[in-house]
Amino acid sequence: MTSTLSDYSRLCIHTITTKPWSLEEAVTRYSAAGVRGITVWRQALEGRDVVAAGQRIRDHGLSIVSLCRGGFFAAATKKSRSRAIDENRQCIDEAVLLGAPLIVLVCGATPSQSLAESRRQIAEAIAALAPYAAAANVRLAIEPLHPMYAADRSAVNTLSQARAICREVGSPAVGIAVDAYHVWWDDRLEQEIAACGRENRLFAFHVCDWLTPTADLLNDRGLMGEGCIPLRQIRGWVEDAGFRGFNEVEIFSDRLWKTDQGRFLEAIKAAYLAHT
Amino acid sequence: MTSTLSDYSRLCIHTITTKPWSLEEAVTRYSAAGVRGITVWRQALEGRDVVAAGQRIRDHGLSIVSLCRGGFFAAATKKSRSRAIDENRQCIDEAVLLGAPLIVLVCGATPSQSLAESRRQIAEAIAALAPYAAAANVRLAIEPLHPMYAADRSAVNTLSQARAICREVGSPAVGIAVDAYHVWWDDRLEQEIAACGRENRLFAFHVCDWLTPTADLLNDRGLMGEGCIPLRQIRGWVEDAGFRGFNEVEIFSDRLWKTDQGRFLEAIKAAYLAHT
Repeated sequence: MTSTLSDYSRLCIHTITTKPWSLEEAVTRYSAAGVRGITVWRQALEGRDVVAAGQRIRDHGLSIVSLCRGGFFAAATKKSRSRAIDENRQCIDEAVLLGAPLIVLVCGATPSQSLAESRRQIAEAIAALAPYAAAANVRLAIEPLHPMYAADRSAVNTLSQARAICREVGSPAVGIAVDAYHVWWDDRLEQEIAACGRENRLFAFHVCDWLTPTADLLNDRGLMGEGCIPLRQIRGWVEDAGFRGFNEVEIFSDRLWKTDQGRFLEAIKAAYLAHT
Repeated sequence: MTSTLSDYSRLCIHTITTKPWSLEEAVTRYSAAGVRGITVWRQALEGRDVVAAGQRIRDHGLSIVSLCRGGFFAAATKKSRSRAIDENRQCIDEAVLLGAPLIVLVCGATPSQSLAESRRQIAEAIAALAPYAAAANVRLAIEPLHPMYAADRSAVNTLSQARAICREVGSPAVGIAVDAYHVWWDDRLEQEIAACGRENRLFAFHVCDWLTPTADLLNDRGLMGEGCIPLRQIRGWVEDAGFRGFNEVEIFSDRLWKTDQGRFLEAIKAAYLAHT
């Protein structure tokens, strides 16, 4: 059995989780609550001096775990694919300014082409970006998304596919973000996580929960413990694979965003210890 | 390239697809439209003499392709699991009365237990039912459901898992229904369909389409051609695997159920030739 978490030293929260809060409020509140890590969504940086934002975060005692998100590489035209690569270079630049060591990639898909073709384009784009990322000392994490997002958000839907792209690209700067929401259903999950570890690809671990029923494909995720994902077991597999980084709470929820975010933050802390 | 379909000799429609119609109206309309097969959903039989319903269907020149649906075997208590087996025996009895040679199984899942445990219970239940089905000359088709239904509808989410259960049960009465909506995202789809064929497990083939965006997890399926599933390619794989049965149109759509069902039936026929 995986041991329970007893403190918040590895708790990271994604700014999108408390979307109603500005970046500044999130930083102040997370810090005051004893949260130690933050993953910054790019929209939270809009209109801000990114260097100053990074400094403010560090001054509040928070580690910047990653910048969310790059990707969206699959596209029907070469022009669109080139533009996506350019935009991801800018995302890497932004990560440098912010002081984020990692970018999470939602790789993209488009309904007009096959998933295999989208994955080919994704691998090609990541290969083009990897040297730029490595030179900037920024790592890139491919996040496999649940198959319900295969049509339009990511043609990378399993850890096995993500590992194949990592092998193809062959850069130590490119690895994988394991988000329990996206991969919990996979009957090879334990072995795949172990393989990510062996191959030095396990860059990030995200948690939330799967609700029954799920009312919306995008924004009806649950707080840990509200759903059916065996989060503690999966965290155990992730740790057995050698991962020692943050456990990142990433929840998209119209329902929870409508609640008092201060109380929600307390609920996250409690659920983190009780169910992660 | 898979050749196009040129007639309706293998077109089957599920009664749920035209849910606003009673069974009687569906039978009359399908028959008049030249549709040759029907899959009957059990709720369409409610309050009816099942033997007479089967006779009426055959009198209209329609083949009864299957009865939808049995299953829901996974449950937390032994009592609930026993009840599910009893209910599935009744479903087999109903198939005999109707004259349906096949029952489609939505195997079940429950958020309170692991997917592996649910699959174990599913295999156990199907093994218990297989002799009864075989004696009644009714076949059982395990339908893997999309992973977005893993929490509460089916812990069988891939053809690979369905094949494993078929092997474990080891009865020629137990096979698989391939529904393109549920499995189109699987990067091993072609090989898995071929394996189903080699193992004599390919009992049924269902089509509809995946919409972008998908507004509802259950009832927002598309008509063939409205979405991104490569249906003709998948039909080709199914036929390469030796399948010569009906192509069954099974669409759950709040949007399409609200439209004139006569026009919808014409649209199904056109989409069947153009996109399946």
